[in-house]
Amino acid sequence: MSSGVKLDISDPKIRFREPQIEMAHGAGGKASRRLVEGLFAPLFFGASTDPLGDAAHLSINGAQMAVTTDSFVVKPLVFPGGSIGELAVNGTVNDLSVSGARPEAIVVGLILEAGLRTDVLQAEIQAIANAAQKAGVRIAGGDTKVVEHGKADGMYVSTTGLGTLLPGVEINPQSVRPGDKILLSGPIGDHGITILLARGELDMEGNLRSDTRSVFPLVDALVKAAGPCVRWMRDPTRGGAATSLNELARDCGLGIVLFEDKIPVHDAVRGACELLGLDALHIANEGQFLAVVSAEFADAALKALQATPGGEEARIVGEIREQPAGSVLVMTLYGGSRIVDMLVGDPLPRIC
Amino acid sequence: MSSGVKLDISDPKIRFREPQIEMAHGAGGKASRRLVEGLFAPLFFGASTDPLGDAAHLSINGAQMAVTTDSFVVKPLVFPGGSIGELAVNGTVNDLSVSGARPEAIVVGLILEAGLRTDVLQAEIQAIANAAQKAGVRIAGGDTKVVEHGKADGMYVSTTGLGTLLPGVEINPQSVRPGDKILLSGPIGDHGITILLARGELDMEGNLRSDTRSVFPLVDALVKAAGPCVRWMRDPTRGGAATSLNELARDCGLGIVLFEDKIPVHDAVRGACELLGLDALHIANEGQFLAVVSAEFADAALKALQATPGGEEARIVGEIREQPAGSVLVMTLYGGSRIVDMLVGDPLPRIC
Repeated sequence: MSSGVKLDISDPKIRFREPQIEMAHGAGGKASRRLVEGLFAPLFFGASTDPLGDAAHLSINGAQMAVTTDSFVVKPLVFPGGSIGELAVNGTVNDLSVSGARPEAIVVGLILEAGLRTDVLQAEIQAIANAAQKAGVRIAGGDTKVVEHGKADGMYVSTTGLGTLLPGVEINPQSVRPGDKILLSGPIGDHGITILLARGELDMEGNLRSDTRSVFPLVDALVKAAGPCVRWMRDPTRGGAATSLNELARDCGLGIVLFEDKIPVHDAVRGACELLGLDALHIANEGQFLAVVSAEFADAALKALQATPGGEEARIVGEIREQPAGSVLVMTLYGGSRIVDMLVGDPLPRIC
Repeated sequence: MSSGVKLDISDPKIRFREPQIEMAHGAGGKASRRLVEGLFAPLFFGASTDPLGDAAHLSINGAQMAVTTDSFVVKPLVFPGGSIGELAVNGTVNDLSVSGARPEAIVVGLILEAGLRTDVLQAEIQAIANAAQKAGVRIAGGDTKVVEHGKADGMYVSTTGLGTLLPGVEINPQSVRPGDKILLSGPIGDHGITILLARGELDMEGNLRSDTRSVFPLVDALVKAAGPCVRWMRDPTRGGAATSLNELARDCGLGIVLFEDKIPVHDAVRGACELLGLDALHIANEGQFLAVVSAEFADAALKALQATPGGEEARIVGEIREQPAGSVLVMTLYGGSRIVDMLVGDPLPRIC
């Protein structure tokens, strides 16, 4: 949030009218948006919805900094390529990164289920420590609560991250212009489909691994290459790339055009999506990000990403146009086109 | 934590050998200490246990600040005098306050149970907003997850707070000296016994209300009156005053002597404790704090507390002595004395 936002609880403008909370309200798509914008934002922030980005920027003691918080409830706790502890660190590191901040420190809150085996817990504590060390963030403190057996699915992890602002970059959907290019750091959908397979809900085998990782090295490379020409970044977790890009389209009032043949998708993800009737653009990622860069710097930005370890599969996947204003249009492989909305409902619960 | 602590995961010194997590590991007493010191601290902080205080002090972007995190899993969600949302804000505000910081901003993570009624949720969002406004902290962001029905007792709330350091005060158990006085801001045990009664587990009626509130105005008054002569502060939540003071005794290596007749305890709390064989010193508080102040400033500090609204019942309840080194001794009403240990086990689960 920009500093100086005051609570205004006298005129809450509460628009959330659904009688109870459903799984979809946590899935990151339209239902989440209705809950956050219709209930939380009016009471927490008054009329402003500024603070709804990945991380808030605020001033503490005269220093500008970024802060973000996330809770992790993924099931199963361990999956190919990662685990809840690793996800908690990387998710928070990534929210700071795409807000244009260097991750510096995290604090960790644990809600543990009575009966949780110590070896399972120890593995996650180790995963948190390792991921923090790898991402270069200090662990600055923590808290532990225990709830009765049968609650909390083993463990829930809440992480809050603090970061310092990267110089020369300001993320603002209002600065996006027609002609700007959309960059994607790598293949989409690996995390969501990995979790689905790990749950055994799908009779399918795959060599897929979650993409969980810190995107900060890639963000840093991008910002160094394109600096003030980076208009917007977002890590498309819950709700997938389609949801992040629909939010951008709505916030900037412009159209977003994606070229389907440019979007990297692993075969296993494509296969699972076809089987389930899902769109890979709706599947969660935990180690990718999207960026909008002005056209004249897009090639330099892409080269910088591709030259950074882990960014080899980065692509320019689309561009900003005047139309369709407020929407995301995908130009398909076969010369057609389709509008892709935000995630509706909850095809893949509990993926982070 | 002091800034500059590095992760040292090569020599973890893990001493936690219990096979699984039990409710007692979240109760704030000895079992919690074993878990945090034996498993979390070695992996998160290497040899250092500095970060185990109420809030970590660290430097971000050249500015000194305090950060603390807490998860709240209290059952029932609403109880006389407060609710989980209010508790989450005040608990975090109080951790910052007793670390010698002015609470400035919080972020809020919600884990909601599918099926939670919107009116119940809205009341807690409002409680969070109201408590934040009352405590003078901005809400800087949030996150929401939803888990299946049956998993999260309605809702769990994680709050992380940021604060700026109060000038002229440094909280450090090593600075505590024999002769220093122990101040208590008001009656103990109200919160824990209120929760017990609200659960209906005790066939007893009482007019008791949780003491949940921000202690910052009292801390601020104390620091203004006694500044550098305030050696240590702590809000005795889980584990109660006895646990906080045992931790202090251990950390400073001195003896803590309490005068039972000076410790304010409401009759309803005293009655419930007698009935249950509990010690009010082990019962959780959510709106009180303990302070150690050098003898020459103790009276001025007490007057400052008593002159601040909500501090009328503050008392000097004990003093620091050479002996019994590392322990807490209570001089009883009847001229005897007894050693009071940290909370052992889990007499009152889920009180915050």
